Amino acid sequence: MNKHYDVVIIGGGIIGMSIAYHLAKAGKKALLLEANEVGKQTTSAAAGMLGAHAEGEGDEDIFFQVGRRSQALYKKLKVDLQHESGIDIRASAGGIMKVAFTEHEKRALCRMQHLPTFEWLEASSVKKRIPQITDDIIGAGLIEDDVHVEPYAVCRALWQAAVRYGADVKEFTPVIEVKTGKEALTVRTAGGTFTCDHLTVASGVWSGRFFEEMGFSHSLYPVKGECVSVWNNGPALAHTIYHDHCYIVQRDRGKLIIGATMKPNDWQAIPTLGGIETVIKKASQLMPSIQEMPIDQCWAGLRPATSDRHPYIGRHPEDERILFAAGHYRNGILLAPITGEIIRDLIVGEPVNEEWLHAFRIGRKEALFV
Amino acid sequence: MNKHYDVVIIGGGIIGMSIAYHLAKAGKKALLLEANEVGKQTTSAAAGMLGAHAEGEGDEDIFFQVGRRSQALYKKLKVDLQHESGIDIRASAGGIMKVAFTEHEKRALCRMQHLPTFEWLEASSVKKRIPQITDDIIGAGLIEDDVHVEPYAVCRALWQAAVRYGADVKEFTPVIEVKTGKEALTVRTAGGTFTCDHLTVASGVWSGRFFEEMGFSHSLYPVKGECVSVWNNGPALAHTIYHDHCYIVQRDRGKLIIGATMKPNDWQAIPTLGGIETVIKKASQLMPSIQEMPIDQCWAGLRPATSDRHPYIGRHPEDERILFAAGHYRNGILLAPITGEIIRDLIVGEPVNEEWLHAFRIGRKEALFV
Amino acid sequence: MNKHYDVVIIGGGIIGMSIAYHLAKAGKKALLLEANEVGKQTTSAAAGMLGAHAEGEGDEDIFFQVGRRSQALYKKLKVDLQHESGIDIRASAGGIMKVAFTEHEKRALCRMQHLPTFEWLEASSVKKRIPQITDDIIGAGLIEDDVHVEPYAVCRALWQAAVRYGADVKEFTPVIEVKTGKEALTVRTAGGTFTCDHLTVASGVWSGRFFEEMGFSHSLYPVKGECVSVWNNGPALAHTIYHDHCYIVQRDRGKLIIGATMKPNDWQAIPTLGGIETVIKKASQLMPSIQEMPIDQCWAGLRPATSDRHPYIGRHPEDERILFAAGHYRNGILLAPITGEIIRDLIVGEPVNEEWLHAFRIGRKEALFV
Amino acid sequence: MNKHYDVVIIGGGIIGMSIAYHLAKAGKKALLLEANEVGKQTTSAAAGMLGAHAEGEGDEDIFFQVGRRSQALYKKLKVDLQHESGIDIRASAGGIMKVAFTEHEKRALCRMQHLPTFEWLEASSVKKRIPQITDDIIGAGLIEDDVHVEPYAVCRALWQAAVRYGADVKEFTPVIEVKTGKEALTVRTAGGTFTCDHLTVASGVWSGRFFEEMGFSHSLYPVKGECVSVWNNGPALAHTIYHDHCYIVQRDRGKLIIGATMKPNDWQAIPTLGGIETVIKKASQLMPSIQEMPIDQCWAGLRPATSDRHPYIGRHPEDERILFAAGHYRNGILLAPITGEIIRDLIVGEPVNEEWLHAFRIGRKEALFV
Repeated sequence: MNKHYDVVIIGGGIIGMSIAYHLAKAGKKALLLEANEVGKQTTSAAAGMLGAHAEGEGDEDIFFQVGRRSQALYKKLKVDLQHESGIDIRASAGGIMKVAFTEHEKRALCRMQHLPTFEWLEASSVKKRIPQITDDIIGAGLIEDDVHVEPYAVCRALWQAAVRYGADVKEFTPVIEVKTGKEALTVRTAGGTFTCDHLTVASGVWSGRFFEEMGFSHSLYPVKGECVSVWNNGPALAHTIYHDHCYIVQRDRGKLIIGATMKPNDWQAIPTLGGIETVIKKASQLMPSIQEMPIDQCWAGLRPATSDRHPYIGRHPEDERILFAAGHYRNGILLAPITGEIIRDLIVGEPVNEEWLHAFRIGRKEALFV
Repeated sequence: MNKHYDVVIIGGGIIGMSIAYHLAKAGKKALLLEANEVGKQTTSAAAGMLGAHAEGEGDEDIFFQVGRRSQALYKKLKVDLQHESGIDIRASAGGIMKVAFTEHEKRALCRMQHLPTFEWLEASSVKKRIPQITDDIIGAGLIEDDVHVEPYAVCRALWQAAVRYGADVKEFTPVIEVKTGKEALTVRTAGGTFTCDHLTVASGVWSGRFFEEMGFSHSLYPVKGECVSVWNNGPALAHTIYHDHCYIVQRDRGKLIIGATMKPNDWQAIPTLGGIETVIKKASQLMPSIQEMPIDQCWAGLRPATSDRHPYIGRHPEDERILFAAGHYRNGILLAPITGEIIRDLIVGEPVNEEWLHAFRIGRKEALFV
Repeated sequence: MNKHYDVVIIGGGIIGMSIAYHLAKAGKKALLLEANEVGKQTTSAAAGMLGAHAEGEGDEDIFFQVGRRSQALYKKLKVDLQHESGIDIRASAGGIMKVAFTEHEKRALCRMQHLPTFEWLEASSVKKRIPQITDDIIGAGLIEDDVHVEPYAVCRALWQAAVRYGADVKEFTPVIEVKTGKEALTVRTAGGTFTCDHLTVASGVWSGRFFEEMGFSHSLYPVKGECVSVWNNGPALAHTIYHDHCYIVQRDRGKLIIGATMKPNDWQAIPTLGGIETVIKKASQLMPSIQEMPIDQCWAGLRPATSDRHPYIGRHPEDERILFAAGHYRNGILLAPITGEIIRDLIVGEPVNEEWLHAFRIGRKEALFV
Repeated sequence: MNKHYDVVIIGGGIIGMSIAYHLAKAGKKALLLEANEVGKQTTSAAAGMLGAHAEGEGDEDIFFQVGRRSQALYKKLKVDLQHESGIDIRASAGGIMKVAFTEHEKRALCRMQHLPTFEWLEASSVKKRIPQITDDIIGAGLIEDDVHVEPYAVCRALWQAAVRYGADVKEFTPVIEVKTGKEALTVRTAGGTFTCDHLTVASGVWSGRFFEEMGFSHSLYPVKGECVSVWNNGPALAHTIYHDHCYIVQRDRGKLIIGATMKPNDWQAIPTLGGIETVIKKASQLMPSIQEMPIDQCWAGLRPATSDRHPYIGRHPEDERILFAAGHYRNGILLAPITGEIIRDLIVGEPVNEEWLHAFRIGRKEALFV
């Protein structure tokens, strides 16, 4: 007989692992299936900024509300995970400095000025805080709450903690087929067949296949991002530098992460020469001295994108045993905690903010790409 | 409208690439789809011995006949590929020295003694040819025809040559769905949808999913093999040392490849501590001085196995547009040329040895595992 | 004219960097010269146990006193470095579990029983704390104070903090010649010539050359140690397991570090096949389930050894401008803070424990090897 | 007693190894000492062009004569080394295409037009041979004799062959001190002390230290070169593309090597972000489609330069037991065979071209840098 679980989660990135963690902690028997190694694809490729402001549009935006909420959840999660897993998720203070080169950019930034979490700084103040920054800026918006974490450390900590709460995690176990028969959901994998009461698809851009099989075509597409890291042997960067989807993030132990290109519909998860050139050029404009730093690594990741830039989080409209949590685009690290909570609440029967569920519902037309 | 091909091949290992090469050379418009990078999985994990004798049972065996034929094909292929791709497949002379530690092992080996390609050597003769070998052997069977090649070099050369003959090769393009409708075969992938007259499944152990979808369950299972390489800074090994499925192969530029464990039903394509210990222990028995050599790398590969140890090569019994070429177990490198020829001949309508097709037919009961 | 420094330090491992940090913090203008990259050799090869008890002999031993003192210094250093560099040195709680397989080993361990920091545990208690441990032990001595840190993180943090206090650090700058003329010490390097008031040699086993040039032959020899790391995807190890110079250390983010062989007079800083086999065999005896864990990396480091197992810390007996801090053998990470303090105190003129200086004096006969 | 050799060679790059090979083949007992691993520094960093024309000035130039002679020696060496070591040095046909973007560049190139080995091609002819090349060129000089080899393969083959002829090679054996006493030369190393009749310094840019110790200051300085390689999955490049010290070389098995920056007096043997950007930008101008190719690796090497761009090959003017072979700048791979022959002839007492010895003599003023 096949082993039975309360919930099977497909996908071992930070989203799937957050769901496994939250469900296991709530007492559900969960199985997470990962086709390769846990946390080694899009999760590891991310810089880890919790950019609720940096990526959102302002306080009326759903994304901004959800992002802020998830950002706040990280504070407790950090403490919990340290205790439950022994792993420090390396949350770094400082936040994001969104720089402006022109008056036009300044005006765009200053639309956030009414927020208590946003502070406009003139160039000289920016320079005092980040002596490495280019002289060409006219100022920057400092968002101290947009701190960053180490994505693989978060994913690893969620994993260890989920296992401690009883979750099963199987690496190198691709799903061959999902059968959505009346009596039970059946998941056939290379490593055996499992039945479950609930199934959650959380495979990032590779979720597309499951969306299609379950009746939703054109739900997701990849936006490839290419990155490079360098060794910063001088003083650490006090704040993440951010401009036009490009960033320089100070990692613990001396590395700077520089990213990232945006290449829609490119599935090739390795960086090209031209992609890396673009990233270097952009970073050099933001921080000229970065040119002298020794290269550490180049890599690429595939962001799972939707046309309206919002993720899918919620139930299959016709089969409530099946849930989706994918399409987090540039914000998978930021939204991992709230996504885990929402899916948990849907499964255990707790109330969930209806407006959010509406915004992130499966099958919405505005999210499709053609 | 979807692009149309004469043949779509699923799988970019050495088997799929040999098929693409042979078809393109025969004038067919071929498309090869690879989910990751070409030749970087099982193909790259192999040592590259062309072990027709080492792996076969003797001259009445089908495997032995087919293996010998494919071994012979490599002689011409080497020259052709050098010309067509500029790549040297690094065929190394010397062949395999199958050592015996006991009289029992000697007797088993000497069953091949009637073959002109087999020569029994006493311990002292073996020692003269391989001074590095252990003193514990009582002799060895030398099979000079069982030379070796560099698997990735072969695959790369086939690729370059196939492209030159007009084949299309798409990396990072996993197949989402195959539709076997009446009018046309349709292959839906992350990178677009294609139609074709013929489809060949050649994805090694990952072909299992397609076998199942097309009605053949339990056709394939993985046998994981773990390997380690070292730097041999002393004199090169003149012959591959082989004993009990274990081998030490001299690669060009000073490396020795040591393999391999046999772990059925293990999908984890990375080596474990215990697996590597086993391999080291075995190699140290065969060649004690190997202990002093610096380690280069550890890795693992998944051999696609069937219960009768023969591959599947041939047509779907009910839909002759669909072909399979998978399950080559320990012999994918050896059998790549003959497999490419058989599939080509089936598609272009040339005659193929009926006995072989029978032995390798899809759906045969003796190959299933339960 | 050549640039002048208060102190030039030769060697950018954890010892040299601790000296640079302590001197810079005390207001001295320091230059550290590293022939390759900072912290990438013996420092990075170490597991990072602060094994004052594990490596020492008991409370009357000088090594034990100094080790305990340095262990204590790490508590403050951790906080200071977090503040000064932003880097967490990853001090992990739990300490060392020194296991006994025989009554004889138990008796040897229990010689520490009078120490308040030592606790003898029967096998069942050990098993409760470390469920992964072998059933073959009869018990273990738990030393909770012998925690561990991440050596490269410590070195990196010292570096960033030293630079912040005004130190100069030059990588890829091998020293060509040291001139000890009457007026000034002159250090000629690939990257320029410097003069200084004090010179400290802290190049680990590569200090041997400077000892010789300054009149002290046969002062140091290497003891190579080979290590391997694995991914522990199960529950974390709560304590370091230690037996007979072998250890298994839980690193943050899921890795276990396993070490280490002891190969005197071997300068080849890469692991051999036989060395890695030894390490795996030993670790498997301590923790059988480690066999199933996937391998991460293999490496080797060169411990700088003296015949009496004590380091050299102090002044040249005939030229007090020249100091040495080398030969820390298995205890470089543990002793880095105290070494930095002693060298600082000698240079700035603070009092230093005379007994220690005597035990660690340069040129002592009992430390020489022949 | 210390072991005695006819010749001790310091430095295990391609130059030192060629000397060891030629001496051992001539019956001399040779010891080669390498501080790290053989062939892993400047040798491995090189692209391997045998650019006698590309780097020389024309037929009256000494460099051109010597370079052409060494280029010719490679033909025999390739065959000998295949036989003696079993290693193919991967000599690739095609030669160098030196492109011109302007009439001025064309004129400069066409100064070689009287040479039978040089052929001027108009843009359309170049495009036919290299379809990947930029449309912006006005033509190119094709030098078919300037083929390329794989530097590490050459070095490895020389190593294996030298050992076969009786040479000893010691890796991880830095030289501590050379004593040039009256009776014997003594070389003290980490791995023991050796005496010898002749000593040859062949440590590339790291030879500077020995030059100085033997009375010749300011003989050598590094010119750092940064490189990147990519995977060329399309048709292979038929010729090396070369312009303004920048090149794109097709390696066997699908890689392109792109190099290289020129950074005088930079000892940091790792690439910087700015260096890699420069290389990418330049390569993209020569071959726009290279932008789409996936990155393989970045690295850097240190060319050993002299002010007159000629190497030092010859005897110490006052102590004929001591020889030098260093300073080969951009041409170490090209000149390895001829350097090995010259040093061998000097030691065994064969005649050597006096003009060459004069041009490459130790201590010449025009080679010094200040």
